[in-house]
Amino acid sequence: MQKFEVTILGCSSATPTSKRNPSAQLLNIADRYFLIDCGEGTQMQLRRYKIKFQRIGHILISHLHGDHYYGLMGLLSSMHLLGRSADLHLYGPAPLKEIIDLQYKYSETRLHYNLIFHPLQNDKPTLIFEDEKLSVHTIILNHRIACTGFLFREKDKSRKITEVLPMYSYAYCSDTCFDERVIEQVKEVDLLYHEATFMDDMENRAKETYHSTTKQAATVAARANVKKLMIGHYSARYSKLEPLLLEAKMVFSNTVLAIEGEKYRIDT
Amino acid sequence: MQKFEVTILGCSSATPTSKRNPSAQLLNIADRYFLIDCGEGTQMQLRRYKIKFQRIGHILISHLHGDHYYGLMGLLSSMHLLGRSADLHLYGPAPLKEIIDLQYKYSETRLHYNLIFHPLQNDKPTLIFEDEKLSVHTIILNHRIACTGFLFREKDKSRKITEVLPMYSYAYCSDTCFDERVIEQVKEVDLLYHEATFMDDMENRAKETYHSTTKQAATVAARANVKKLMIGHYSARYSKLEPLLLEAKMVFSNTVLAIEGEKYRIDT
Repeated sequence: MQKFEVTILGCSSATPTSKRNPSAQLLNIADRYFLIDCGEGTQMQLRRYKIKFQRIGHILISHLHGDHYYGLMGLLSSMHLLGRSADLHLYGPAPLKEIIDLQYKYSETRLHYNLIFHPLQNDKPTLIFEDEKLSVHTIILNHRIACTGFLFREKDKSRKITEVLPMYSYAYCSDTCFDERVIEQVKEVDLLYHEATFMDDMENRAKETYHSTTKQAATVAARANVKKLMIGHYSARYSKLEPLLLEAKMVFSNTVLAIEGEKYRIDT
Repeated sequence: MQKFEVTILGCSSATPTSKRNPSAQLLNIADRYFLIDCGEGTQMQLRRYKIKFQRIGHILISHLHGDHYYGLMGLLSSMHLLGRSADLHLYGPAPLKEIIDLQYKYSETRLHYNLIFHPLQNDKPTLIFEDEKLSVHTIILNHRIACTGFLFREKDKSRKITEVLPMYSYAYCSDTCFDERVIEQVKEVDLLYHEATFMDDMENRAKETYHSTTKQAATVAARANVKKLMIGHYSARYSKLEPLLLEAKMVFSNTVLAIEGEKYRIDT
């Protein structure tokens, strides 16, 4: 079995708490490391969970709200200071390049490694990475500003011919309001990460802020017929998370909570 | 006695470690809160040490190397999301404004409070803040890019006439190579914070990178005839800090280490 597992580095929404960090996940597929979003403190979280961050080959940024990318400059700089020479591929909204370049201009920094930037389109799902083991497509989400999710799929040729051939898939959807069009894009994935910023009684607030409730996340999971749902991006107002889990389970029973430091295998 | 104390929030140099965060200090003078530098994770450190960050009225950024300001956007954003309405004064190199504005443009954020930006000059020491209790001047440092320290002085009229009148002062000097001109600017302060990135055997490396050694920091303290020296901004290569302290003490005995979470009273 090749690896296909995700480690949660941050699961809070915009305001971090003393216990929860902003969004970041480390996906390991067949020893390829993808960092998905990079909230403030991600480099510290990588250290805390003893993940060798120079092994990250690809960083994907869903959108330009700070809780999803304010840790990026620090991580890129530490990679540089610690002697990285390997290429690093960065995927994100086009203005991200301008934001990085401006800061490195004034710090007079010239990275020792190649930072290869891939601007994301936001009009239709697009193939953004492919090799012999897997493919990555964007997922078009519905948020206050342009926001893309990411869909990772193993390829059948990545398995030995004698093996049973489960081609696992993982979809990352944060941040988004409830939108029928998301359902189509995550049909039958093995693991769906979907934001659940609010509980059901705050559906109006969710709508106003282009976020989702627990039940909306679970509805997407149920209607897309996914195998398992992971919720996260919790509002700072919730100190205990069990009530969010219980609500989601009322709609889709195979739901788990994203918990920092936990590693989730896609095949279980 | 009015308060005059500094809490260390971060004491590492450019690369944070699992135990040390990048530069940030909270100075409380007569219940005025000044945040000096704001490395990545500063808002989490403020929470950890239970400092009410909405009470911060002034943020001072010494220079535009990331380990001194990558936590700023996150802190400004959290202040906004948590409903701040009070003015916030920000002091830093002129391009900092451009960096902030660019990021808020793309996140489509309009702060609910007034962020009043004061660009710092880097050619001569300048008065940047004054009220009935204290004054703040810049200190011109010598680093790879423009970098200013900060000198806080109590005023005599802040004390009752019947009191003995110790007008305490605190100087913050990070980052800088050893430079005679710094000595003049910090003469006889009560507490001098001076960076000591390297130990004495790395004097060449210190020079190349425009940083200081333990002994150089202590030499500044001795020649400026300060009361006490605090060293910090330690290179990630040093897991134990006692050897740095011992070296500094060989030159200036009244030296202490900056340790995260510790609170230092200026008058003791």
